[in-house]
Amino acid sequence: MSKTVDIQELRRKLGEISDVHAAIALLQWDQETCMPPKGAEARSFQLATLSALEHRLLTAESLGALLYGLRERTDTLDADDAKLVEVTLHDYERAVKLPEDFVHAFAAEQSKALAVWIEARRTSDFALFQPNLETLVRLSREKADYLGYEASPYDALLEEFERGMTTAELERIFGGLAPRQSALVERIVAAGQPELPWMTGEWDEQAQWAFSLRILSDMGYDFEAGRQDKSIHPFSIYFDTGDVRVTTRIHKDALFSCLMSSIHEGGHALYMQGHADADRRTPLCDGPSLGMHESQSRMWENMIGRSLPFWRCYLPVMRELFPGRFDNIAPEDAYAAVNLVEPSLIRVEADECTYNLHIIIRFELEVALIEGKLEARDIPEAWNAKVKQYLGLDVPDDARGCLQDVHWSHGAFGYFPTYALGNLYAAQLFDAMLEQIPGLWDHVEAGTFAPVLEWLREHVHVHGRRKLAPELIRDITGHDPSPDAYVAYLERKFGELYRLDA
Amino acid sequence: MSKTVDIQELRRKLGEISDVHAAIALLQWDQETCMPPKGAEARSFQLATLSALEHRLLTAESLGALLYGLRERTDTLDADDAKLVEVTLHDYERAVKLPEDFVHAFAAEQSKALAVWIEARRTSDFALFQPNLETLVRLSREKADYLGYEASPYDALLEEFERGMTTAELERIFGGLAPRQSALVERIVAAGQPELPWMTGEWDEQAQWAFSLRILSDMGYDFEAGRQDKSIHPFSIYFDTGDVRVTTRIHKDALFSCLMSSIHEGGHALYMQGHADADRRTPLCDGPSLGMHESQSRMWENMIGRSLPFWRCYLPVMRELFPGRFDNIAPEDAYAAVNLVEPSLIRVEADECTYNLHIIIRFELEVALIEGKLEARDIPEAWNAKVKQYLGLDVPDDARGCLQDVHWSHGAFGYFPTYALGNLYAAQLFDAMLEQIPGLWDHVEAGTFAPVLEWLREHVHVHGRRKLAPELIRDITGHDPSPDAYVAYLERKFGELYRLDA
Repeated sequence: MSKTVDIQELRRKLGEISDVHAAIALLQWDQETCMPPKGAEARSFQLATLSALEHRLLTAESLGALLYGLRERTDTLDADDAKLVEVTLHDYERAVKLPEDFVHAFAAEQSKALAVWIEARRTSDFALFQPNLETLVRLSREKADYLGYEASPYDALLEEFERGMTTAELERIFGGLAPRQSALVERIVAAGQPELPWMTGEWDEQAQWAFSLRILSDMGYDFEAGRQDKSIHPFSIYFDTGDVRVTTRIHKDALFSCLMSSIHEGGHALYMQGHADADRRTPLCDGPSLGMHESQSRMWENMIGRSLPFWRCYLPVMRELFPGRFDNIAPEDAYAAVNLVEPSLIRVEADECTYNLHIIIRFELEVALIEGKLEARDIPEAWNAKVKQYLGLDVPDDARGCLQDVHWSHGAFGYFPTYALGNLYAAQLFDAMLEQIPGLWDHVEAGTFAPVLEWLREHVHVHGRRKLAPELIRDITGHDPSPDAYVAYLERKFGELYRLDA
Repeated sequence: MSKTVDIQELRRKLGEISDVHAAIALLQWDQETCMPPKGAEARSFQLATLSALEHRLLTAESLGALLYGLRERTDTLDADDAKLVEVTLHDYERAVKLPEDFVHAFAAEQSKALAVWIEARRTSDFALFQPNLETLVRLSREKADYLGYEASPYDALLEEFERGMTTAELERIFGGLAPRQSALVERIVAAGQPELPWMTGEWDEQAQWAFSLRILSDMGYDFEAGRQDKSIHPFSIYFDTGDVRVTTRIHKDALFSCLMSSIHEGGHALYMQGHADADRRTPLCDGPSLGMHESQSRMWENMIGRSLPFWRCYLPVMRELFPGRFDNIAPEDAYAAVNLVEPSLIRVEADECTYNLHIIIRFELEVALIEGKLEARDIPEAWNAKVKQYLGLDVPDDARGCLQDVHWSHGAFGYFPTYALGNLYAAQLFDAMLEQIPGLWDHVEAGTFAPVLEWLREHVHVHGRRKLAPELIRDITGHDPSPDAYVAYLERKFGELYRLDA
């Protein structure tokens, strides 16, 4: 076969896989937004069947043969085709390393563990979940053995979510982050909280919804290529660059919940709407890692959405949408309210200053579990000790402690650190953006986000999976992934907000 | 392999096919209700890929081997398993008769023809569409040759939509229907129309939506196993007996459009929600034919929704929802309004008395095309002559004539007659129901539809595809499919409404 014929055949096969993947994504989107309750049982069958079909297509020997043949001729391919072969071959080799029996056994354990975890969290009973956690840790270590690794089995798991990052590198990064972030939190707690009586009470739901649509539109989210719906947990999802959807939730008594989650998911969605047209229906049409994806959502949410210029711009909009509620409120008041820092037990409710500490707790426990240095049964004690160490809090029960997050019941070890990396990448990218876009804060204060979006499109979005996250960060910022930019950002911002120098 | 193992393997394979089918259905539902415009291109790829996967699974040699092996041992199977093997084998043999190249060529022609038809209808230019129609007729005759037939090639096409029915039998049935229905329409036209000035003006959209939800709920549609959305063309769709959705449309200036279409789609949906639990994820979970399916929607829409007892029940609801609009309106007035008869050019706007005449026109032309007795180029002339003959109208242009319906651009010859059969089956079933449910009209007048639904569940819904439509009609009513019940129903109802004896 000629090179051209093989590349066409590869793109045909990858298009098919991408179509099945999009169908799976739609089944999931519908499950969270539209599906009636009695559809749940059949939906789980549909998802299992389509996932198995996708796995079968992705691990087909004919695909492997095609890829190995093309790799031999990489030097004759153009840059896009060569990159496509490289990225697909990585996915293929990772997929075929896992025996099909093992994949099924793992999936079966995940289903069982999820059901048990739900009940264990409800009753705050870790002992109930402990055997499932033990099994998933054991299977995850087996998984790491199948996949192979050099230094730590955790490396092999991490690669699924954050390719290009290692356990040792994360330990170095988080080691530089934790003490500085902890120290900052201590100083903030000592400084005392602002009074925010005007934040109590209920906030009109339709106005919250209207604000979230308005801000998505201002950010440059294309509603001709997406839509917003409601779901219990906000998420964003990709079917195609022409169809990237977001969801939000509305809480009557928490004004910022809907708004900030819409900005967050909007950040993810802009990334997905911004991939290169030519990459559609190929594996290049994605971010290089979850951390890089999270950098987009966190930058929009925190660096922009929780900035003073942003609230200078949007306070008049709030006044219109919530008549009477903002009459005596200054931009500085809203800015203070949206940046309230308070150590708390629950990760998903954590502010910018404490969030990473929640992640570091999980990361340290995960590595110890996977490296065999900690037993599942010792998790509650270890968890509570770390919460005391990093956040200064006593954990009253496991529901508000080690049982709060769903990830371990999915057997998704290696996922959590990407949340913190997202914050660090966001700060590094934002520093570069501030240098390169003249008058950036004036644009934000005017509600003009096109310069930001164009910069992100050019430097991040269109590259898809062509570069790994650390490489992309280096190319854009001139630095390796590091906690410095984020810590400096926090110290500057919260130092002013809480007058820590005064 | 043991019989039990083979049946389990068959059910596993059929479950997989059914899951892929449900994913396709969701892709279609979403396309009509939620998908943003820029998602359309990728969606067509997704649908093509999933459809090809489904076809591949349905025509797999391993499935055939399993089915032929089980057929040899039918006498050792229980009744459900034996029926499952029989029905699946029918689908399998029909699918494998068509070469894969032919299936792709047909699909490609359908896509092309659809795009041309849209433009041809817009410009009312039949000549534009004629070459595509010629190709689709030629391919449909080839399809009939692949599938095989005894009397007419149209039989082979009809089987896809109305298995158990033949062209000759349809000619006999429609031959007995057309002159009687035409004669009735002539008498009605001569009798003159009622005055309905109160029907003009706009009708509140939210009230229309609320009414449609109310009536679906009253009918027994389970909103825990479904939902209603808006779409341009109303439809109902099955993912599982636990997830059957309906759509409707709302026209401000046409009160009955949303309401009657909701009842119609509700009738289809109740059928799908009513299939046997044990049949889920198998081909038994469907109606035996489109005509039988249409009997359910038309019975609810026309026999019940356009009855006087129904309007005696729902006029007070209308008064509440549309304040002031029904104050001086009697149930008899609403009953007259919802049963207005007026020969018109457009099938989808036709009333109960003229609807079948539109179908018979298409049926006669289709049979002539497929049997080679009529050329595509002669369609407009033949169409216009038949409209004059059956409806007494002159066709001003092809957009309101032979180009009005999408079906031929899909190459779906044999589909139209199922609409008329639905009306006939509905009348036959309703007569049986009237005999068997004491005080049926009192229940309708009380808005109590449980007896109707229970009767339909027991006699029609739970049987799925176990019996072909003619057999089911015979078993329930004691008669073969026939136009007599429907004509008698029309003559009785419209004779009174239009005082034809006076």
